[in-house]
Amino acid sequence: MRTSIATVCLSGTLDEKLVAARDAGFDGVEIFEPDLVASSDSPEQIRTRAEELGLSLDLYQPFRDFEGVGPDLLEQNLRRAASKFALMNRLGIETMLLCSNVATARSGDEQLAAAQLRELGDLAERFGVRVAYEALAWGRFVDGYEQAARIVRLADHANIGLCLDSFHILSKGHNPEAIETIPAEKIFFVQVADAPLLSMDVLSWSRHHRLFPGEGGFGLGAFMAHLVRTGYDGPVSLEIFNDTFRQAEPGATAIEARRSLRWLEHEASTFLGASGGRAARMSVTELPGVRPASEVAYVELRTEALEDMRELLGQLGFQSQGRHRTKSVELWSQGGARIVLGRPRTDAPQPTVAGIGLSVPDPGTALRRAIELFANEVPREQDAGDEPLVGVRAPDGSEVFFGAATRTQPPWVHEFGDPVAGGTPLIERVDHLNLAQPWQHFDAGVLFLHSVLDLQTQPSTDVAAPVGLVRSQVLRSADGIVRIALNLVPSGERGEAILPQHIAFAASDVLSLARSARERGFRPLDIPANYFDDLQARHAMDPLLLDELRELNVMYDRDESGEFLHFYTPPIGTVFLEVLERRGGYEGYGALNAPVRLAAQYHQRRHAESSA
Amino acid sequence: MRTSIATVCLSGTLDEKLVAARDAGFDGVEIFEPDLVASSDSPEQIRTRAEELGLSLDLYQPFRDFEGVGPDLLEQNLRRAASKFALMNRLGIETMLLCSNVATARSGDEQLAAAQLRELGDLAERFGVRVAYEALAWGRFVDGYEQAARIVRLADHANIGLCLDSFHILSKGHNPEAIETIPAEKIFFVQVADAPLLSMDVLSWSRHHRLFPGEGGFGLGAFMAHLVRTGYDGPVSLEIFNDTFRQAEPGATAIEARRSLRWLEHEASTFLGASGGRAARMSVTELPGVRPASEVAYVELRTEALEDMRELLGQLGFQSQGRHRTKSVELWSQGGARIVLGRPRTDAPQPTVAGIGLSVPDPGTALRRAIELFANEVPREQDAGDEPLVGVRAPDGSEVFFGAATRTQPPWVHEFGDPVAGGTPLIERVDHLNLAQPWQHFDAGVLFLHSVLDLQTQPSTDVAAPVGLVRSQVLRSADGIVRIALNLVPSGERGEAILPQHIAFAASDVLSLARSARERGFRPLDIPANYFDDLQARHAMDPLLLDELRELNVMYDRDESGEFLHFYTPPIGTVFLEVLERRGGYEGYGALNAPVRLAAQYHQRRHAESSA
Repeated sequence: MRTSIATVCLSGTLDEKLVAARDAGFDGVEIFEPDLVASSDSPEQIRTRAEELGLSLDLYQPFRDFEGVGPDLLEQNLRRAASKFALMNRLGIETMLLCSNVATARSGDEQLAAAQLRELGDLAERFGVRVAYEALAWGRFVDGYEQAARIVRLADHANIGLCLDSFHILSKGHNPEAIETIPAEKIFFVQVADAPLLSMDVLSWSRHHRLFPGEGGFGLGAFMAHLVRTGYDGPVSLEIFNDTFRQAEPGATAIEARRSLRWLEHEASTFLGASGGRAARMSVTELPGVRPASEVAYVELRTEALEDMRELLGQLGFQSQGRHRTKSVELWSQGGARIVLGRPRTDAPQPTVAGIGLSVPDPGTALRRAIELFANEVPREQDAGDEPLVGVRAPDGSEVFFGAATRTQPPWVHEFGDPVAGGTPLIERVDHLNLAQPWQHFDAGVLFLHSVLDLQTQPSTDVAAPVGLVRSQVLRSADGIVRIALNLVPSGERGEAILPQHIAFAASDVLSLARSARERGFRPLDIPANYFDDLQARHAMDPLLLDELRELNVMYDRDESGEFLHFYTPPIGTVFLEVLERRGGYEGYGALNAPVRLAAQYHQRRHAESSA
Repeated sequence: MRTSIATVCLSGTLDEKLVAARDAGFDGVEIFEPDLVASSDSPEQIRTRAEELGLSLDLYQPFRDFEGVGPDLLEQNLRRAASKFALMNRLGIETMLLCSNVATARSGDEQLAAAQLRELGDLAERFGVRVAYEALAWGRFVDGYEQAARIVRLADHANIGLCLDSFHILSKGHNPEAIETIPAEKIFFVQVADAPLLSMDVLSWSRHHRLFPGEGGFGLGAFMAHLVRTGYDGPVSLEIFNDTFRQAEPGATAIEARRSLRWLEHEASTFLGASGGRAARMSVTELPGVRPASEVAYVELRTEALEDMRELLGQLGFQSQGRHRTKSVELWSQGGARIVLGRPRTDAPQPTVAGIGLSVPDPGTALRRAIELFANEVPREQDAGDEPLVGVRAPDGSEVFFGAATRTQPPWVHEFGDPVAGGTPLIERVDHLNLAQPWQHFDAGVLFLHSVLDLQTQPSTDVAAPVGLVRSQVLRSADGIVRIALNLVPSGERGEAILPQHIAFAASDVLSLARSARERGFRPLDIPANYFDDLQARHAMDPLLLDELRELNVMYDRDESGEFLHFYTPPIGTVFLEVLERRGGYEGYGALNAPVRLAAQYHQRRHAESSA
């Protein structure tokens, strides 16, 4: 599959955009006209620069408001087109994008539009270029791809074809199936974009909320499968604009973009299935398959407050397994939950939740898949005799390691000395991680987990914090073994008040655990009395249970399938812990309780500040 | 008019919210349930605290999903309501907001809903409280205020009335006129919110985009006038949530909120007009009227780079009038454009464009209006013999001063010594200011200029910068004498690359000015050759004019009514200057050129960085 990206997707100068596209391994770019107009390089210099970088210039875009106009305007429009065709000759670009008329069309007569496109085709022929006509979702008369295809067929000119853009097709709810009826030679160009499923005017949706494939809710696998079946084998290009990418560093955005296309290729091949599509000329290959992780083998925590964290883990019933025989990290465990604990590393900045280890059937395949998805491998510091683990870095700087699944505990555990015998573990395993993402990395984080770990995205929720809304997006494996919530934290001056990361452990009996932790000196996050009064009002609570929750600061939720009990530790640095118990089939995360918890944390911080 | 504000409008703990509301002079607050639930204070403590602060607790909100349900659920709902009524008794709150059922209603039968509300009314009566029923715009069966009013009439219970919320009414496009048919005693509560005119699902619009009155596009003056005519004289309360206020500092938000209600009261009185509304019991008084400014008397610039700015002003043909006789500022002038120039003040942080002076018919009245709108007065450092000027501080920290309009130049000019005779001035006056606003202050800035200076908001535009979108909102006087563009600059890590402030001067002949400035050593911002090629493609340009534009780096725009020529200076610190010429009736700002200018500035900065 030939990959391309529109320069509008990336921030910076045109040259910065070209370099970022090259560095991420794109085959070509679309030149977005305003980027050219604003560039201090001449068209010839840009052409030479792209050649040096090994990038093809696949498309000049956009040309607007051409067809369906009166004779006077047609003449002006042809003059405009001629000057752009001359410019394309200077750039060495063969294809121009023509958007369906938004502003100046006076008629929706398809014969008229076709006749005018035929004139444009004659002009294009003289310059040796061609025109890809695209139905904008908000076109004045032409807003569907089947309509655009009809007009192109009527125009019947070798230099006039179509541009298909997944956004314009799927945002209108149009069925992409009819793509298969379009002759491949009439598809001059293809743009792909994803988007969250929003209900708003399609122009604002397009301008502010496009996403890279795999980050939104569009059915892009099916779209691509239809395209491949036509026999199209031109570039598949990204045209994404949203308020985040416009500001983000172009190098990172280009990698994210490239990952999204590799994922999309995989999705297409899955959709094509065994039948393959006999007309297919575009090669779309699957990613190495990952089989689900059998457990979260460990979570790595890096904090300066080692002593406080040790005390807290001890209070919660974790046992220290001792230090690693060669590295300065220590292992704490309880049941199947393991924390690798150390001080922050000095060589590379990492979040406090610095890494996660997954036990998978075939670590080598998992790594190969990640690398095919443009993840950077992180070699484990491997000492003699250490178990081999392989890993990659996530967009937020944390690490994901893969180890071989075994029937007993992971073999690397023995590198920390012999397990200490302890009481009956009440904590059974890591239930989920909750990781704050800087706004620049939120969608990239979703794509990374979705594509590399094959986790499924759940509907996102907004949680009201005392100082802003937190957008929370859970990704999980089908069996619920791996669950990661990514949180988009407000970037405002007071956004830092929201504690950014936490680890939630699943316990068999959270009330017993809370009680025994208290006997070991633990003080949970204080939950206000009003919360428990409100619980009583909302649910007909068993008064004995309510008293116990209140006494132990344990929060509660309930749905049709079960119950949820959970408590929080105070923060240690920028991380805190949660212990939870799922009763029956409860699969949520206590979303109704999150604002109360955030307010309690905010209150505690303000209290600590004012008494400091 | 009794004023109130929902605690959800303000960030922080409940106590921080109450203090902010008191400090801004509100009469009361609505208690938003999640704020109570998350508070560590008991209901009795909150009641006492509000009494101490002199705030009435006007409403408990929201109660949800009550009416239109089956018998089992009705019983549960009455139990829920009883526990909330008991809580309201503890808080001393008389009125509860009931939102129309979104989730659990099984029937839209108005008789059924009314019968169930009547049962709720009986229960409320026993607790000595009352219920204000509100039609949510996205209610399952009840989504209009006229429908809610019918149900309340059918319920026919003294303890059941209505809550009217301008957002739910105006977002649906419902005509507010029928408000006048509702008996005043059935209107238990009124909430007002403004919003930008967006086309999106009404729930997201409501959750993320509400604005204080005067900041959006709703016709709130008419809404209020209808309300006043009913004879309602209860609280008028703000219930606003948007992603900005949730993060902003609560004290500043509360002042902005209070200003919006004062403006709204004025609007209502204007709409009521002489007729007054005979039933009116609510007092709504007009603001002191302002008459339009006759000129921008001066702009005050505070910069460390005094020498560079002096050189630049000289190159543009400004004459130095010398230093102020007692203060360390100097005056530069040309035609009717005056710059008061000095170093940054050390006593209070100010933007580089630190102030603006307006010549108005009656400075005292202008000041009184501003103060009635909760603006803070800034006393001019008044030395013996100085002309009196009065002023206030804008939300971004800059100052607005009012001086008496005269036929000649402002009398304070003589405090700078005698005017220097110069050549023929090509610059005639200040055309507009372009002021970047931090995201926390953007809407507040709009409200300030709109209400205090009576400037009218123009449709906002988005401008693509190399590192993010800039939202630009022009406010102007009807005669075009005062024009201020507020820009919402992206807050991202790279957002600072956008130059934040500029002053635009109107010239009689911008080409001559550019030429003579060049002779004085001026170098304008360099505009790329591609831009002029594109101009040629877009407009059939006179080749001689195009050559001159290109030579002098002057940008160009055209619309049906005229032409626009303008050039930019390089930045000096965080400010730059623009000189423009309007030909014919052109009233715009060259929006199409803004991305090219922003890119050229970005390019220049990157170039300077890389050669540094």
